[in-house]
This record gives sequence, structure tokens and C-alpha cells, in this order.
Amino acid sequence: MTDPRYDVIAIGNAIVDIIASCENETIAELGLNRGGMTLVDADGADTLYAAMGQATEKSGGSAANTLAGLSQLGTQCAFIGQVAQDQFGEVFAHDIRAAGIDFDTPMRESEPPTGRCLIFVTPDGERTMNTFLGAGQFLPAAALNEDLIASASILYLEGYLWDPEEPRRAMRRAIDVAKAAGRKVAFTASESFVIDRHGDDFRAMIEDGVIDILFVNEGELATLTGEDDFEAGLATIAGKVPVLVATKGENGAVAIAHGQRAEVAAEPVAKVIDTTGAGDQFAAGFLSGFVKDAPLETCLKRGAIAAAEVISHYGPRPETDMQALMAEKL
Amino acid sequence: MTDPRYDVIAIGNAIVDIIASCENETIAELGLNRGGMTLVDADGADTLYAAMGQATEKSGGSAANTLAGLSQLGTQCAFIGQVAQDQFGEVFAHDIRAAGIDFDTPMRESEPPTGRCLIFVTPDGERTMNTFLGAGQFLPAAALNEDLIASASILYLEGYLWDPEEPRRAMRRAIDVAKAAGRKVAFTASESFVIDRHGDDFRAMIEDGVIDILFVNEGELATLTGEDDFEAGLATIAGKVPVLVATKGENGAVAIAHGQRAEVAAEPVAKVIDTTGAGDQFAAGFLSGFVKDAPLETCLKRGAIAAAEVISHYGPRPETDMQALMAEKL
Repeated sequence: MTDPRYDVIAIGNAIVDIIASCENETIAELGLNRGGMTLVDADGADTLYAAMGQATEKSGGSAANTLAGLSQLGTQCAFIGQVAQDQFGEVFAHDIRAAGIDFDTPMRESEPPTGRCLIFVTPDGERTMNTFLGAGQFLPAAALNEDLIASASILYLEGYLWDPEEPRRAMRRAIDVAKAAGRKVAFTASESFVIDRHGDDFRAMIEDGVIDILFVNEGELATLTGEDDFEAGLATIAGKVPVLVATKGENGAVAIAHGQRAEVAAEPVAKVIDTTGAGDQFAAGFLSGFVKDAPLETCLKRGAIAAAEVISHYGPRPETDMQALMAEKL
Repeated sequence: MTDPRYDVIAIGNAIVDIIASCENETIAELGLNRGGMTLVDADGADTLYAAMGQATEKSGGSAANTLAGLSQLGTQCAFIGQVAQDQFGEVFAHDIRAAGIDFDTPMRESEPPTGRCLIFVTPDGERTMNTFLGAGQFLPAAALNEDLIASASILYLEGYLWDPEEPRRAMRRAIDVAKAAGRKVAFTASESFVIDRHGDDFRAMIEDGVIDILFVNEGELATLTGEDDFEAGLATIAGKVPVLVATKGENGAVAIAHGQRAEVAAEPVAKVIDTTGAGDQFAAGFLSGFVKDAPLETCLKRGAIAAAEVISHYGPRPETDMQALMAEKL
């Protein structure tokens, strides 16, 4: 096994976020799934966009956000994801490269356009996401750069992208390539609805020892294990994945790695502006410690610091000098 | 003369801003015109974009920003400007309509794409703008809705758009329509380079009594009048335009209307984040008072409050409840 060229390579949705603040009543009037992520088609996205206030566009996508955070924290990263050849595709590609991440998945020339996520942010900072996957759902296995995947210490996969068929096939292939090269597979469950639809796949991968690092939040853990009790849920999985990271929002997070357990409180935040990207940046902070063999508790603390930064402003990626922030807070 | 349907109708560039913070050195390395606005072609825009960090997209355009501020302050507005039929065109159209502004200029189907402005913001909050005008420079006189123009109390024109030939012709036609309907013409000089190129046009319009309300900053006043001394510059023009508004950045602003003079200090700002839109929002605040026959000093104060709000965050349009802010500060 040669020295890895990358610390983390991720496969995920390539999406531009369209973010607007809104009143609480708007969520009810539009019948949105408050605090959740809902898939919408092109017409649904147009209808919601028309109902949205003046907005801001920022590159998003869960795994891409995690890489943007990791890269800022000094981790070598590459991304695989599908955009279309359009202005949002150019925006996504520009921003991920500007974040210092290698990205060479060819743009897709035909319809649909690049994916977008309409994010309504209520006064409490809660984000309600409505995603039109667009080109992202057509990421083909043929677009994978297998040498790249084999050259990364960790293959990081986004649960959201397990839903559409072509990317799911691509991710299964990527797992085989990573495993054959002796690399680790990290997986984020992303959202309970994904587990509702593909929980059997995920449980099988856990049983088969395919997943080396698993990120879940409380709700996802319950959906995945069928256990409403958090500790019972942890106990169900802990022995089956080498590293389990379970976040609990404002109640902090727990990690169990090779039988060792660590916990962290949530990092205080002066004012929560927009919770978009909280889980993504928690994963970034955690992995930035993990790839440098930091103690489990330090990894968790790094995750909590990164999550606190991103929820203190609009948008899903860090806007602070994160290395300086880590140096100050740790 | 029937009652006006709109308070203000504006003709301006329809542009999406691409905003990124940068170090001071970047401005020098890229050879940018620090603090100014420079026109670039498509290739120039691509080159600068490639050199830019992770960015945020927000609708911009000087006159469109002013209308967004005016609309928030309870003023009835309509906008005329040219976008292309592409994703940035959809973003611009969405945002201006979401701001409560009527906008029905048809999208242009052929190349070039919708205009964009690459804005580099240094740590002191100074913005350096690089504009690819794109579709905006092809606004044809035929796209004017003349009934709309005749129905607005004030026709507001953006100096930036005087540079390309087709929109200049359209604006001359709009002036004729507004004047024939007994309406007022407001003009913002926009930038010294525009006056360098079209100063003779502007001076002739001033001499001919075409401009009823003129907005300039210190540098533009000097370029327009040939007087380096601010007071001497004011004296050159004051008798020739019914309302002259001259801003001096952190040194406040002066207005001279029908021989009466008023001054205002700049509104204090905790931290200047991004000066993009300062002049645009000063004009919005001023006009929001002017259309309601507020005293000259109140109009200036409203301008100062609006400018202070916009420079305290990234982006060229208000992000605060401006009516509440005015109520609090006045």
C-alpha cells in the first residue's frame, strides 16, 4: 500500500444553495417540512423559488461542505460529483476548487441543470431545505477516477446521494475500489428519509463491516436501529463499526471507537443564524482530527467548534480562519 | 397629468454580484483598480473569477440596488434592465420581484449571458468591482414600456449604463418620455470613469435643465466640474440642477435644493464589512424621504442611515427591516 495522496476523497451531491430568511408562517403556508430536507422536482423548485424572498446563492452539497471545512483545516481533499454545464455548475466548480479541493468530474452537457437547494431560514436559525437534485442524480460510475479513490486514506460518502440509482451504483463501485486498496470508508446517514428508503442497504453494510466511520444524528440513529432510546441505539451499532459518531444538536455529541467512548458538549454560540451545514462541519472538524490521529475527545471537540462556527452565519461553509479558531479554542 | 402609478422607475444594469473577501495583496497581484469599478470582457471576467476565493452570489446593479432599498422603505417602484435567459438572469429577476419591484423587461435569448460583477472585498471593507456587462449593454429602446415611464414621479438613471450605446439611446428616449409627461429625472453619476468618457453629455444635460436630481460623490463632482475643491465644485452646479446631492463617504453628505443647503454627518458603523452599495443605498434613503416631501435634512439623514446599514454586511441591498431602522434612528 503506497502512501495516500489524499486524506479524504468524497462523493456527494453537487449543489448550489439558494438561501433566504423567512417568517415562521411562511413554512406553514407553503406546507414545508420544517427543519428537514425534502426532494422536489423542477416544477416544485420553481414554485417554491417564486414564493421565496430576495436570496443569496452559495455553493453547498453536504459532502462538499464537509470537504470545504476539511480543506480549510489543512486536510488534502478531492471531490467527485455531477454538475451540468451551466452557470450554477460553474459556481459550484469554482467554489470547490477555490476551497483548495481537487475536482475534475466532467460537467454534464444535457438536461437537467445543476442541482439547487432552496433553503428557508426561520428567525430561530432553523433551515428547511428543498432540493432539486438536477444533474447530481446522474453521476455515473464511469465518472469515477478510481486511481484517485484508491489514493485517499478515507472515502467519504453522503447518504443523500444513495437515493438516486446511478450515483448509488457509483458509490458501491467506489467502496469496492477503496476497500481493495485497504482504505477506510466513512458514511454520513444524512437524513432519516434516506434511511427510511435505504435502511436495509445501510444495515447490511454495517453488518458486513463495510463502514469504518459512521456519522449519524439522534433521529437517524433511531431510524437506523429502530431504538427510540439514544443509548440503546448506540449499543446496537457500536460494536459493528470501528468508529461511530452520533451528534445530538445542542446537546453535544458522542463517539465510540474500538470500544472507547468520548463525549463533548455543544460549543456555545452567541446567536444561531442559520443551522445549514451544522452536521457537515461537525464531520469536517471530527475528521480533521481523526486523520492526524488526534484523541477521540479532541476529534469531537474539533467537530463541535466547526459546527458552532457555521451556524453563526448564513451559508453552509466556514467563513472564519478555522485553523486560528481551532488554535484559540482547543 | 394623472396621479403617478409609481414613485420611482429606474433604468439600470441588471447584474449579479459575485462577492469574495480577499487579502490586500491580492488587489495588487491582480493589478485591480482598488476601490473603483472597472469594465472587463468575458475573458477578463473568467480570469479574475479563477483567481477569486470561494464566493457568494447576490443580485446587484446600482439602480436596481437603489430600488430594492426604496421598495423596502415603502416606495412604489418599477425597474427596466436587460438580463439574458440564463440562471443568473433568473436570479436577478427573482430577487428584484421578491423585493416588491415591478420588472417586465423580456429576457434576451442570445449571447452574451447576464452581466456579473466580480467584487473583491479587502479587510477594511473596501470593494473593488470588475464588471462584465453582458446582456445589459444590449438594452434596446424598444424594450422601454413608455406608459410605465410616463406614470412614475421620478425616472432614475444610472450613469454606468450611459457607457454602452444601445442603453444610452434608450435612456435618452426615456428622458423625453418622462419630460413630456411632466415627471422628474434623477441621475446618478456612478463613477468618475463614466464622466471621463461622457462628461460632455452630462454637462450638456445639466446646462439644459434635463436633470432634476443629481447624485454625485466627491470624486465624481471634481471630474464633472473640473474643480478639485469640493465647495467650488458644488457652486459650479448648484444653480443648474434643482436638487444636488453630494456624498463624501465617511465625511457625510451635502444637499442643495432650490438654493437651500443641508448637511449630514455619516451615520456611525460598528464595523465596515463591505462598502458595496453604499452610494446606491444613500440614494434610496434620500429619495424615500424626497418622494414624501420630507425636509431636505431628513432626506439626507435617511440616506446616511441606509448607507450605514448596507456597509455593515456583505452585499449591496438592505438586510434589515429598514422601516423599523428609520423609525428608531430618526
